[in-house]
Amino acid sequence: MRAVVLDGYRPIAADAIASLRVVEKPVPRPGPGEVLVRMAAAPCNPSDLMFLQGKYGENRTFPAVPGREGSGTIAAIGGGILGRFLAGRRVACGRMTDRDGTWAEFFVAKIRECVLLPRFLGLEQGAASLLNPLTCLGLLAEVREGRHRAAVQTAASSQVGRMLARLFRREGIPLVGVVRGPGQVEPALALGAGPVLCSADPDFPESLARLARDLRATIAFDAVAGGMTGQLLGSMPRGGEVVAYGALSGDLCSGLAPMDLIAREKRVRGFYLGEWIRDRGPLRAWRAVRRSQRLIAEGVLRTEIAMRIPIEDVGTGLAAYLARRSEGKALLTMEGAG
Amino acid sequence: MRAVVLDGYRPIAADAIASLRVVEKPVPRPGPGEVLVRMAAAPCNPSDLMFLQGKYGENRTFPAVPGREGSGTIAAIGGGILGRFLAGRRVACGRMTDRDGTWAEFFVAKIRECVLLPRFLGLEQGAASLLNPLTCLGLLAEVREGRHRAAVQTAASSQVGRMLARLFRREGIPLVGVVRGPGQVEPALALGAGPVLCSADPDFPESLARLARDLRATIAFDAVAGGMTGQLLGSMPRGGEVVAYGALSGDLCSGLAPMDLIAREKRVRGFYLGEWIRDRGPLRAWRAVRRSQRLIAEGVLRTEIAMRIPIEDVGTGLAAYLARRSEGKALLTMEGAG
Repeated sequence: MRAVVLDGYRPIAADAIASLRVVEKPVPRPGPGEVLVRMAAAPCNPSDLMFLQGKYGENRTFPAVPGREGSGTIAAIGGGILGRFLAGRRVACGRMTDRDGTWAEFFVAKIRECVLLPRFLGLEQGAASLLNPLTCLGLLAEVREGRHRAAVQTAASSQVGRMLARLFRREGIPLVGVVRGPGQVEPALALGAGPVLCSADPDFPESLARLARDLRATIAFDAVAGGMTGQLLGSMPRGGEVVAYGALSGDLCSGLAPMDLIAREKRVRGFYLGEWIRDRGPLRAWRAVRRSQRLIAEGVLRTEIAMRIPIEDVGTGLAAYLARRSEGKALLTMEGAG
Repeated sequence: MRAVVLDGYRPIAADAIASLRVVEKPVPRPGPGEVLVRMAAAPCNPSDLMFLQGKYGENRTFPAVPGREGSGTIAAIGGGILGRFLAGRRVACGRMTDRDGTWAEFFVAKIRECVLLPRFLGLEQGAASLLNPLTCLGLLAEVREGRHRAAVQTAASSQVGRMLARLFRREGIPLVGVVRGPGQVEPALALGAGPVLCSADPDFPESLARLARDLRATIAFDAVAGGMTGQLLGSMPRGGEVVAYGALSGDLCSGLAPMDLIAREKRVRGFYLGEWIRDRGPLRAWRAVRRSQRLIAEGVLRTEIAMRIPIEDVGTGLAAYLARRSEGKALLTMEGAG
């Protein structure tokens, strides 16, 4: 089979992408509790770019196959009743442990990492149906369970940002969007979830603080990190919290005022999808998956696909994609994808 | 009466201290629910130095009298039964709202800000008997309530650091101390609470991570802020939390790895004494005060006094003190202190 491999981490994303190779590898064999998936498509997510740069904190040996999710058809099973039930079916799969990933023609998945695709969901939308849509449902649950009346999100133009805006508008929860470029304000506003601010504006911190206070937005979802985390924390009302779920800036979080943490009782923590799913247990996780699949079909949690890259063109394709990332997601396509 | 006044914030501590003046002011009158305290002594705490620099986040008008706690004798009452009961008594008092403070010969305290000093506690120990000792009991409660097996603390040579070490040794909870200078390691070790590391050592992050893992120290108390917060967070085991309660470095918290927050589920929050006391309610707060008074008398939560500064010498005295702060606390003394 053909597989994308990375020989070692490169700190700069463009370098890391340029160093990706496509190699021939033997088709792996599924063990007990595993299935072999003939991959149709796999997205390039921000967490994949972090992995290529060695910033995702995984313990991998090289050469390593990237890719955290994708879609395909069950080609072989490693035994067990559930495995036999799955044979031949279309699935979305997500890799939850440190091993070879989905950027290949075949991927060995644990059965619990697979989700059947309903008839109304194609392999393209299915390929990106786990990480981003479930993250959105997880962040919505944070708002509900923490009884927040409104929320703030950074990277409001990202794929998760746009999904989140559509989801929160549907749920009637005001969501203040923060974008990094002035040109991103109008498109984000058009999603109708709430006001949108540009972090490059000189009065951004004050404007955000005023909006957060007026709307009682006491939780902020941060996908940017770097100095943005400190700015968000400073603009939150007393007792507010910043929940990190991404690090698009590539920087460490900084600029957190100690007195925001101490006297104003604000907090910083993270949202980690894998742990959220484990915490819920199998039944509630399955219900979240079903709900996300319906919301994908309705368009609320739909992935906008900007570019389809045949697996053999991964290096040049992703390099071209990186130059215009905000327009949608790049999908690696394997032979037989449709 | 004589009172220390500050005319405006100065970003550098030495400048702020040099600008302090001692002025004559009319003795203030206590209103309903208030008492007038003839002050005996008041400490200079790190939070006072932060206030002088405008870093404490208070809303004061200038000229302002600094000082958050102290001790003295009730000289007049603003009415009420409790006020009459207090007349003539020795008290410790702490200022919990934004108004003129304890660095003066007289201070108007709310009755709920006053604590009777038992016979076994003198006015000197009483002057610093609220903020630091109660902070130590509050941090101990965080360990107990969070079921942590061990803890880490920065600024292990500070007054709170030394109190905390004696308290945790007494309670049998391992406490890893972090100091900033190599010369502070031996004295901190001698307190017997646990291992002590110097943050200037090149292998400090790895050593701290190893110790925290081995001892299962899943909570870290940070009085330093700046880059220390990020280092602590990085060295905590999965799920660990950093609790900020001071900002001795004067810097914003930085260097927090997003993946520590996200995939390793670590958290950053603060401990605020005022809120901790409010949360407990009057009865439990009173019991904490009684306990801290006994522990002060036993020496566990005793304040080491490095320097007594007559109020009229506040500028020169505090300037001299700032040069050798780690040796103990500076106490402003008013006429009649004993």
